[in-house]
Amino acid sequence: MKVYREAVLPKGFLANGLFCGIKREKKLDLALFYSEFPAKVSALFTTNKIQSAPIKINKRHLKKNQDSFRAIIVNSGNANAFTGKEGITDALEIIGELSKRLKIKKEEILVASTGVIGKRLPILKIKRSIPNLVSGLSSDGIIKAKEAILTTDTFPKELTIKFRLGKNTVTLCGIAKGAGMIFPNLATMLCFIFTDINITRSALDKALKEAVDFSFNCITVDGCMSTNDSVIILANGKAGNPLIKANSLAFKIFRENLKKLCLELAKLIVKDAEGATKFIKIKVNQAKNYSEAKKVALSIANSNLFKSAIYGENPNFGRIVSAVGASGINLNEDKLKIRASSLKRKEIEVEVFLNQGKSSAVVYTSDLTPEYIKINAAYN
Amino acid sequence: MKVYREAVLPKGFLANGLFCGIKREKKLDLALFYSEFPAKVSALFTTNKIQSAPIKINKRHLKKNQDSFRAIIVNSGNANAFTGKEGITDALEIIGELSKRLKIKKEEILVASTGVIGKRLPILKIKRSIPNLVSGLSSDGIIKAKEAILTTDTFPKELTIKFRLGKNTVTLCGIAKGAGMIFPNLATMLCFIFTDINITRSALDKALKEAVDFSFNCITVDGCMSTNDSVIILANGKAGNPLIKANSLAFKIFRENLKKLCLELAKLIVKDAEGATKFIKIKVNQAKNYSEAKKVALSIANSNLFKSAIYGENPNFGRIVSAVGASGINLNEDKLKIRASSLKRKEIEVEVFLNQGKSSAVVYTSDLTPEYIKINAAYN
Repeated sequence: MKVYREAVLPKGFLANGLFCGIKREKKLDLALFYSEFPAKVSALFTTNKIQSAPIKINKRHLKKNQDSFRAIIVNSGNANAFTGKEGITDALEIIGELSKRLKIKKEEILVASTGVIGKRLPILKIKRSIPNLVSGLSSDGIIKAKEAILTTDTFPKELTIKFRLGKNTVTLCGIAKGAGMIFPNLATMLCFIFTDINITRSALDKALKEAVDFSFNCITVDGCMSTNDSVIILANGKAGNPLIKANSLAFKIFRENLKKLCLELAKLIVKDAEGATKFIKIKVNQAKNYSEAKKVALSIANSNLFKSAIYGENPNFGRIVSAVGASGINLNEDKLKIRASSLKRKEIEVEVFLNQGKSSAVVYTSDLTPEYIKINAAYN
Repeated sequence: MKVYREAVLPKGFLANGLFCGIKREKKLDLALFYSEFPAKVSALFTTNKIQSAPIKINKRHLKKNQDSFRAIIVNSGNANAFTGKEGITDALEIIGELSKRLKIKKEEILVASTGVIGKRLPILKIKRSIPNLVSGLSSDGIIKAKEAILTTDTFPKELTIKFRLGKNTVTLCGIAKGAGMIFPNLATMLCFIFTDINITRSALDKALKEAVDFSFNCITVDGCMSTNDSVIILANGKAGNPLIKANSLAFKIFRENLKKLCLELAKLIVKDAEGATKFIKIKVNQAKNYSEAKKVALSIANSNLFKSAIYGENPNFGRIVSAVGASGINLNEDKLKIRASSLKRKEIEVEVFLNQGKSSAVVYTSDLTPEYIKINAAYN
């Protein structure tokens, strides 16, 4: 297995990114990912009851089709959320234009948006840029594409894993964005994963769900759940391996690598959290079960008081105790133990021991800083 | 009915406050409230699973006795929470000393603490100050007592309501503290209410519960639930009114006045929220029921993104939409309406219309500011 700290597209995938005019600063804001061959797809979306127009459309497309996807078009700077029927129409127009240019069916296209909520997309600017977006597609285009999906991010999140499966080499390449509004389930987080593995759709679904549960669903920046979160994986089968079914040995190898990829991308999102100065790992041990352990860990991770104390490098462990108690699980405070690494470091580990059982959970978060507030006081 | 913006103790109540040495800066940190006559009591405590030693002791005393309480002793600067068996022993020692000095039973005393979690109380300093605390008791002593219960508060929260009940005049006097860690159910919030009304214990319980549900349980500063929250009311019966039972007309008059008192004190807590520059009223209308309305209101009120936007006077209504969707209730976004008063003002009102029914809920919160983080980065 080899891990690359940059995005390297697997065989058969192309990408591109450009500035079409959505962002006020002249930064890339439109990305296209293209599969030369029909790809299977699996996707997970936000559980926010208000969902962006792109998510609504993707859900429709995924009902009709899961085995022959060809493209994902993504804009940043505008979430196309809370935009009513017009938002749907706008997204469908983009899909229509792209479908003509790429000569593929509309149902073979997925769409994603991230940015400000409640504003209409500048649809003409986007449509006008689609010809250039398509003609510039290349495997190196991922360099521009990974920039074009960012909003307040200060760096792109990217990782590539290559691993052997019998005689074949499989590539998993993931890119992600997200720096605020990060909370399970999913966040203002977009993640696109491209792989050449040959796998059944149900196995792909199962692997993605498990990987996301232990990665993107274990990070929180501000406890705010977005309307646009999406994790999408495309698998085009070009690695040439025998078809993988769920629970086979090959499936498990794939799933572990996918988990690793998602966890690394999730950690990068937390490291780039808006205004953050600290990366915090919270591990809750000796819980009755995983769900209780995670509940406690998230209760700590979402405590503004805890996060402010970490920013101040202030060993106020009462904040942790209080958050453990506020999680709602039953506990015996006399048996509770808390351990934290030095708060002076940039990466901090907090461990809680509940003395109730054998389950653990890990979540990742950042500190809460005046800079976070400044960024979000001004963002619109 | 007359409302006074200061605490005026009803007949038969005395108080005092002094500096005993818990706080580093030389501010008052020990308060005593005393009833010359046995008083009925009702109390509500935090639902945090980790509760301070004082709360554990109060619960025991309330099981044994609810009809003849005489005193509440309160310290600030130290929460006596997560202090194990020693914390209980410390609080019992204070009670023991006070019981001797006041010549009352231990079970007639309640105790409260607020401040840093996880540190032992400086028990000798406190015990040594009890003789002065007792000898200085007076009805004007409330002026010192209301200062002595504060931590990061910048002003005491106090209110007195006098109202007629037939031929008698009843006084309700409340003082409170709390500036951070404010979230239902209750917060790092202490509230003590003194009244001379003559009422049954069950009616007192009912009135307090209803008043707290619509006041202290409708405010949130940072979504953090404390280990020490307590609302305690003492009723000594000296107003001379005929005994009030639940659901009588007199009960309703009392309950409405108690609600008013609690709501005013709750709003004062939000106005003094740590680092806050804005006071925000969030009203959710047209919900299916009160519980859903309140859920939506609290989801907005606890959104760091919303609170940062308000600090920046930034009309980012997408933050509100997203928080409404994250509340978990089912909704139709096309029917959702949001209205906000000018963000330039110090007091802001946000109204959400769900178009689903006839219920409303109101909650109060503050903005999230760099100053909040600075305060909590340093507090220990």
